[in-house]
Amino acid sequence: MMNSEYSLKAVKQSIDDYLDKVIQKRCHEAKSVSEAYAKLWLAIRETATHSGKRVRPYLTVVGYGKMNDDILPIAASQELIHIAMLMHDDIIDRDYTRHGVKNISGLYREYYGRFLDDEDAVHYAHSSALLAGDLLISEAYRQISKAPVSQEARSKVSEQLSKSIYEVVGGELMDVESPFVSDVEFNPLDIYRYKTASYSFVGPLLSGAYCRGVSPDVIDCLESFAINLGVAYQIQDDLLGVYGDEAVVGKPKMSDFQEGKKTLLALHHQQMADDQQISRFILYGSEEITREQFEDIKKDMIESGAYDKTRVVMQDYFDRALQYISQISDRNLLQKLTSFVDQIKDRQQ
Amino acid sequence: MMNSEYSLKAVKQSIDDYLDKVIQKRCHEAKSVSEAYAKLWLAIRETATHSGKRVRPYLTVVGYGKMNDDILPIAASQELIHIAMLMHDDIIDRDYTRHGVKNISGLYREYYGRFLDDEDAVHYAHSSALLAGDLLISEAYRQISKAPVSQEARSKVSEQLSKSIYEVVGGELMDVESPFVSDVEFNPLDIYRYKTASYSFVGPLLSGAYCRGVSPDVIDCLESFAINLGVAYQIQDDLLGVYGDEAVVGKPKMSDFQEGKKTLLALHHQQMADDQQISRFILYGSEEITREQFEDIKKDMIESGAYDKTRVVMQDYFDRALQYISQISDRNLLQKLTSFVDQIKDRQQ
Repeated sequence: MMNSEYSLKAVKQSIDDYLDKVIQKRCHEAKSVSEAYAKLWLAIRETATHSGKRVRPYLTVVGYGKMNDDILPIAASQELIHIAMLMHDDIIDRDYTRHGVKNISGLYREYYGRFLDDEDAVHYAHSSALLAGDLLISEAYRQISKAPVSQEARSKVSEQLSKSIYEVVGGELMDVESPFVSDVEFNPLDIYRYKTASYSFVGPLLSGAYCRGVSPDVIDCLESFAINLGVAYQIQDDLLGVYGDEAVVGKPKMSDFQEGKKTLLALHHQQMADDQQISRFILYGSEEITREQFEDIKKDMIESGAYDKTRVVMQDYFDRALQYISQISDRNLLQKLTSFVDQIKDRQQ
Repeated sequence: MMNSEYSLKAVKQSIDDYLDKVIQKRCHEAKSVSEAYAKLWLAIRETATHSGKRVRPYLTVVGYGKMNDDILPIAASQELIHIAMLMHDDIIDRDYTRHGVKNISGLYREYYGRFLDDEDAVHYAHSSALLAGDLLISEAYRQISKAPVSQEARSKVSEQLSKSIYEVVGGELMDVESPFVSDVEFNPLDIYRYKTASYSFVGPLLSGAYCRGVSPDVIDCLESFAINLGVAYQIQDDLLGVYGDEAVVGKPKMSDFQEGKKTLLALHHQQMADDQQISRFILYGSEEITREQFEDIKKDMIESGAYDKTRVVMQDYFDRALQYISQISDRNLLQKLTSFVDQIKDRQQ
């Protein structure tokens, strides 16, 4: 079983090559529409390929049980939807770089800046990024419909993608609104479940499993596993965002604080802080917060017990994830999933 | 053959009901995600159902040859992609109403205005409309994957939708860039072909024909028909936009002029105008253009011969469309398509 010996690195390489081939093809086709359109596809190629860890396609391969050409389009579709969502997320967050390089909005802001003032250049740069995201949502479905797996598998994978998009949009909306909409209650765990777990964990893993043809029982176990793991991952992400090494994590640590992001950590602190700590916490969500005030609140969050409580909840989600798969009879699958959880637990970024 | 007796009105009614049912279902499901998400689906329902002429689903039914429950999801998917594209188009155009009522951005700008200043309210309102459009792109694919037609038909319809989205985005990008990007050449006929003909004519008609199972020869004829009709339709749209009755057309006539839209009419005028007419035409693309200056340029466009030349080109496209279907042996299909062309030719809006 040579091809059941796959690693994240090997999957990443195959997916990078495959995506590059797909996007190059679209680039080439775009030339017959117009030069302007080919330029957009070039920007997509520049920003989308060879970036990212390709964890989602890897999970698809794990669900499928082996790495071959049949599963590549399905695995690639999971990454395409991720890239599309990042493009749209960057518009919403008004971010112009990702992984330290210009994203679509960043590239087009510069290009349109040759013809327009910055306000208009930004608006139309957002428009180009919006269109680029639309293209990749559509491309994700296109990859599924062409994949050389059974008709039944294709249908289920396509339906799963629709569910994932339905859920991630719900999660994204909550994430966007939670810092400022005050007439609706937002539970951070709902946001994690829908924004992170759905299309980053559940969708990729189940898509692979559908192509393998596993029983509905196993599908249910894998789904519960993926939901719990996804929530644990997001809690961990928030903790790393505040307490991790800024250079390793790769994003400015104060950003959640400045945005007033409704994280589980912040919620716990709100519930557990004493009056003095609460008086300092009112700066959470202020763009003017200083580095010193940020460090004070970080310390407060440890002293209030919020940090520990959040870690306990995270650990619970990790444990529950593992419990759900403990009954799986396929030793290889169980082993791959368990070591995947270990990798996540150990991550520093 | 009772069910081959369908009218645009009857199709509109069925599609309105069907879409309303689909969106209501998603609304209901959204409640289990969050109240905020249900609110977005309510806004989608409010703006998407019972608006629009449903010409695209009608073309799908024409291509299919009859109206029944099998074709409904396929026909609905054509309208869903249209609504999604309008939502994203409105963001790009910074429009907050459509058909005289608030669109998603308009509704959310008002709602978020309760919590944010107008600049941020507008930004996040655009974000909600962006997410709503993503949902409906995905829903269009979902409808196709569930339609009770043959597996082969579903595959072809899904592939056709991917092609349509690929083309309409190319056309949209050209349309957006043409007024201000000066280092790329834009041909208005390319914009019409890709922005209008692809997803509004080719996609809907071929999707119906694929489900009917017509021969590749007929598919080719229908495709050429739809491309030419779509281009003719868009040229007519531009002419109505300038010379039509503002109250009937329903959009301010000066908008193309203010935006400096690269229409075929404007291009012809640029090529045919004398020095005096050109000196007045420099105001094309200026937001400060007055009603009087607008009327002067309109007159100039008639006197330069640009208006007549544009009408001749439009008529050529109508003629070519009809030529492509003249060999179709199915009398019923031929008759439906011919009378559809007549309806378009006669339209005042």
